[in-house]
Amino acid sequence: MKQENTAPLRVGIAGLGRLGKRHAEQLARHTPGARLVAACSPVAEELDWARETLGVPRLYADYAELLADPEIDAVVLVTPTTLHADQTSAALRAGKHVFVEKPLSLDVATCEAVEAVARDYPDQVAMVGFVRRFDPSYARAKAAIDAGQLGRPFLVRSQTCDQNDPAGFFVRFAPSSGGIFMDCSVHDIDLARWMLGNPKAVRAFASGTIALHPGLTDCGDVDNGLAIVEFEGGQRAMFYASRTLPHGHETTTEVIGTTGTVQIGFGAHADRTEFRNAAGVQHTALPDFFARFEDAFRLEMEAFVAACRGEIAPPLTLSDATEATRIGQAITESLRSGLPVAIA
Amino acid sequence: MKQENTAPLRVGIAGLGRLGKRHAEQLARHTPGARLVAACSPVAEELDWARETLGVPRLYADYAELLADPEIDAVVLVTPTTLHADQTSAALRAGKHVFVEKPLSLDVATCEAVEAVARDYPDQVAMVGFVRRFDPSYARAKAAIDAGQLGRPFLVRSQTCDQNDPAGFFVRFAPSSGGIFMDCSVHDIDLARWMLGNPKAVRAFASGTIALHPGLTDCGDVDNGLAIVEFEGGQRAMFYASRTLPHGHETTTEVIGTTGTVQIGFGAHADRTEFRNAAGVQHTALPDFFARFEDAFRLEMEAFVAACRGEIAPPLTLSDATEATRIGQAITESLRSGLPVAIA
Amino acid sequence: MKQENTAPLRVGIAGLGRLGKRHAEQLARHTPGARLVAACSPVAEELDWARETLGVPRLYADYAELLADPEIDAVVLVTPTTLHADQTSAALRAGKHVFVEKPLSLDVATCEAVEAVARDYPDQVAMVGFVRRFDPSYARAKAAIDAGQLGRPFLVRSQTCDQNDPAGFFVRFAPSSGGIFMDCSVHDIDLARWMLGNPKAVRAFASGTIALHPGLTDCGDVDNGLAIVEFEGGQRAMFYASRTLPHGHETTTEVIGTTGTVQIGFGAHADRTEFRNAAGVQHTALPDFFARFEDAFRLEMEAFVAACRGEIAPPLTLSDATEATRIGQAITESLRSGLPVAIA
Amino acid sequence: MKQENTAPLRVGIAGLGRLGKRHAEQLARHTPGARLVAACSPVAEELDWARETLGVPRLYADYAELLADPEIDAVVLVTPTTLHADQTSAALRAGKHVFVEKPLSLDVATCEAVEAVARDYPDQVAMVGFVRRFDPSYARAKAAIDAGQLGRPFLVRSQTCDQNDPAGFFVRFAPSSGGIFMDCSVHDIDLARWMLGNPKAVRAFASGTIALHPGLTDCGDVDNGLAIVEFEGGQRAMFYASRTLPHGHETTTEVIGTTGTVQIGFGAHADRTEFRNAAGVQHTALPDFFARFEDAFRLEMEAFVAACRGEIAPPLTLSDATEATRIGQAITESLRSGLPVAIA
Repeated sequence: MKQENTAPLRVGIAGLGRLGKRHAEQLARHTPGARLVAACSPVAEELDWARETLGVPRLYADYAELLADPEIDAVVLVTPTTLHADQTSAALRAGKHVFVEKPLSLDVATCEAVEAVARDYPDQVAMVGFVRRFDPSYARAKAAIDAGQLGRPFLVRSQTCDQNDPAGFFVRFAPSSGGIFMDCSVHDIDLARWMLGNPKAVRAFASGTIALHPGLTDCGDVDNGLAIVEFEGGQRAMFYASRTLPHGHETTTEVIGTTGTVQIGFGAHADRTEFRNAAGVQHTALPDFFARFEDAFRLEMEAFVAACRGEIAPPLTLSDATEATRIGQAITESLRSGLPVAIA
Repeated sequence: MKQENTAPLRVGIAGLGRLGKRHAEQLARHTPGARLVAACSPVAEELDWARETLGVPRLYADYAELLADPEIDAVVLVTPTTLHADQTSAALRAGKHVFVEKPLSLDVATCEAVEAVARDYPDQVAMVGFVRRFDPSYARAKAAIDAGQLGRPFLVRSQTCDQNDPAGFFVRFAPSSGGIFMDCSVHDIDLARWMLGNPKAVRAFASGTIALHPGLTDCGDVDNGLAIVEFEGGQRAMFYASRTLPHGHETTTEVIGTTGTVQIGFGAHADRTEFRNAAGVQHTALPDFFARFEDAFRLEMEAFVAACRGEIAPPLTLSDATEATRIGQAITESLRSGLPVAIA
Repeated sequence: MKQENTAPLRVGIAGLGRLGKRHAEQLARHTPGARLVAACSPVAEELDWARETLGVPRLYADYAELLADPEIDAVVLVTPTTLHADQTSAALRAGKHVFVEKPLSLDVATCEAVEAVARDYPDQVAMVGFVRRFDPSYARAKAAIDAGQLGRPFLVRSQTCDQNDPAGFFVRFAPSSGGIFMDCSVHDIDLARWMLGNPKAVRAFASGTIALHPGLTDCGDVDNGLAIVEFEGGQRAMFYASRTLPHGHETTTEVIGTTGTVQIGFGAHADRTEFRNAAGVQHTALPDFFARFEDAFRLEMEAFVAACRGEIAPPLTLSDATEATRIGQAITESLRSGLPVAIA
Repeated sequence: MKQENTAPLRVGIAGLGRLGKRHAEQLARHTPGARLVAACSPVAEELDWARETLGVPRLYADYAELLADPEIDAVVLVTPTTLHADQTSAALRAGKHVFVEKPLSLDVATCEAVEAVARDYPDQVAMVGFVRRFDPSYARAKAAIDAGQLGRPFLVRSQTCDQNDPAGFFVRFAPSSGGIFMDCSVHDIDLARWMLGNPKAVRAFASGTIALHPGLTDCGDVDNGLAIVEFEGGQRAMFYASRTLPHGHETTTEVIGTTGTVQIGFGAHADRTEFRNAAGVQHTALPDFFARFEDAFRLEMEAFVAACRGEIAPPLTLSDATEATRIGQAITESLRSGLPVAIA
């Protein structure tokens, strides 16, 4: 804590797509203790945006150059999933703290290889972006569980469901996304592990259907998926992921314990208004993940900065990313084979 | 209790309009311990309905004949308000138990005169139809208050709000209804007294507006009314009555105490469904007072029958009716004068 | 409809346990068009109750005698599950209409055998007690689906969850209940079929855990169960059943379609009250299935009576019972084997 | 808009109490386009806090010195109410933009005098802190009204209710607060005007009670107050203010129109969690005004900065402050006299 008012953390961001821009704005404008000093993207327009809108002074087209910049303490990776693992390892080797968006990799062995690299740099923070852990409601639920208010938690039911995009952007993205469970449910998987106390997963079963996007057939993906995961000791999790909700984004989690349960996010209220007219009583639903987790994105970045500055312990480890991938891949394999898949 | 399985209470009903039919069906089909043996109406079609639909054996066009029927133990009055008081007194004098719809009278002195008659017949039940007291949710709230769960209750906010009827039936009814406060808020007034422990009202102030029905101007009535009532000892009540809600019937009450509050009826859900679609998240609102208080109408009639059969003490007295009229008339007078009105 | 005011349906009930008493009271006191004229139970105290409390005139210890009574038009079976099938067949052969509680049988072949008997008596009603279909909220949801308001419904998520009974009554009942899915989820299975348009089920997978009642181990049952069912054409259902909810009974269903979704029963409100105090904002949850479905039990019995009197078509057939058993047994087998089970 | 990336607005803040600290942190850390360059307080510890926690470079004990600082473009006044008017005028005369917390003054003539000063400085922004206008839910409601979704809005019911503070801090503050209506309801008054389209108020009536804090008696104040305000043309408003809610802060507003209504803030949810246990279903209520309006405080300050930089028109004028005081004082006078008060 004694360092709190010392020099701010100098951050470089790589990747300036939709989510990258959010993180960049957050770091440039609203994250105490940090300064966004560099940005990296192969897209010239994105670098222009960073300079003009956020005043980012140093811009790189090449990630290696970003890492070579000695005036950078930490990098934030919002790049395509296929790059996450190598870029994380490289950042650690370059002496930088690193924040990487989820998933770390679609491959368990690759995740483990990055973990191995991280073990060589114990003084650097390596944190994966499971943003829902930073949402105040999820944090309150976790605190209640840790305080024993649910007794022994034994079941998590969790969903990540997006509003249908008639343009089907995600269909084009499907071949590289790892499938609906790796793309959406990975958050729910991480939450289930967190809420249940990090039990060892032993088996997964999945099923799914294509409700609206037949274009997914080719890559073996679905637009609505269901999964059951069994953990050692009898705990269970049930996941639902959808790309086709008609009304908005509805991401919810329920943790059921022996003496209490907690529900997070039910109702999907966009805000605190409710309208009444001839059609009845209604409220608007959240439009998307960003609207739901705006605060969490901010708090996540603040936590990363605080961890880099030594003010708090890193709230997430790369091991959390590895385990989420391990379970997500077993679910995905079950979707394809139609059989339960044992988890090593 | 020992009488429970003896002969059923023989009931005659007077008045077979919309609400009268409800009570008649209730008594004929669903009220244990009672038999609907007679009906009285000046409208031949209504008597036909009673005979054909409910199988009521004895039908009278004249109320005096109904009272003269020695095979009737109790009468249920669902007649126009102007008849309530005289018909109640006559029923008592004829040796019948009597249930009378609210309000007993628009005139306090008339209410008191009926009370005086009732005192001469202490073994007969005389009960006024403040149906909301019999709703399970109101009953639970009252029980919580009596158990001290709110500390000292000091404020009631209560409303009776109907969905707008574009045909404006109530406008034609306005000249004889006693105005919006006597017609609608009389329920809220009774509830406030009940919830607050029957304090003495000392002053009332009202205001109102005509939102949609200019035809009310002639009789000095409004379609949206607001009132504040002051009770001895500092307790307060605030009432809202509306004829013009766009979405349905929304009748709610909040009781605020020093250590807790209770809200009854918020949300106006017609049932337990909630729909989600491109317009957001919505539920249907209750269409009307009947839909909201269907159970309460049943329980009210069961309570009346149980009181007549000596199984329970009468849950309501004529004095409750008198006090509701006293407060309702003060509010109505304030609406007209624009000044606070002291309550004797 | 022309028969509506003719002689009432004469009903005999068999089985006077907790649910049997409910049906008996309903028939004796509140079901228009019916008279409860006989009761059958091997337990003398139960027959005494029927005579003394409900005034049922003819009492039988032996089911064969009940069926031999020529003054009975219909029988209502609320007997142990193992008797349902034979008693239903016998009633049909005796010329009676029959209402039988769910499940018809734990065995698919037995269900089919009863169906075969029923085909010989096409003029007699044979209806199974899937009571949730008669709940007004479920009925409204179904009507909305039939009106196309959800587009194509493709996923049902449904649960039947009871408040934990520390005494564990159901544990003693477990060896004969058929397991948690046959006992609880059979309702959800029936609803899923109904909401999805009676698709053919092709495969089931289940998992479960024992959270609080180790006594279930011996009979291979669990106190919390999860299941996924796959239907032909890509529709899916997901079920959750629990015996251990800490707060009350929470039975909910969600139907997800391509243009809308409907949720039924979320929130588990016991009534329309909400309390606020130092602990926050709270409402009481429903205590049990009876409290939740009180209206539905009434409407179900009214529908049975109306069907027997020819006023409506029977809303449920024995085939619905067979299919629910077929799916329920596949789920139960999957729970035991740990493998997906194909449905013939 | 062309100025958006020019030099940031240099802001000096006066007053560093609880709310002052919030605004200072907002300006120092999270408000794009602004820099907090100076702070003013007669309390040395507060200036120390500004320097040490926020790194504010220039600190003044004397407001005149703050105004004399040529490197300041705008001042933010979070000082005691009695100073607001003079300090606002002085800031304007010193060539600064000014943001002043509500109420501008407890005296209408004083408000009008500040307005007169402001007219001499048309190029400087003078904005009063009616923060609820900047809450996203209130903003959405207002947009819906402006889009005609409620038809003609004719009634506002609005409340500002704080959780009881057993220490009774506000009792000590009561002699200078202007009373509960000037301190709390002034927000509701401003909202009512805004939602109803700035109608002219013609009359007010108020009542109140002391539920828990007898210390208020001496200064003629109450801890629970009710008011009705009549506007020209028939619109109405009803206000409730409380210092004694048992569960938290519950600030709500309902706007009722001829074709729709909107409710804002009902339910008082602190977050998106809901707990279930043996006590039922519950959620935590908002603890205070700050928790409820955290986003609004941020957006308000961003709007002030944007107005000063010429990017938007000032969303609020001093005239809004004057009218709120005019109505608030009429309500307060009515509370004391017991009579309706005409509004000039």
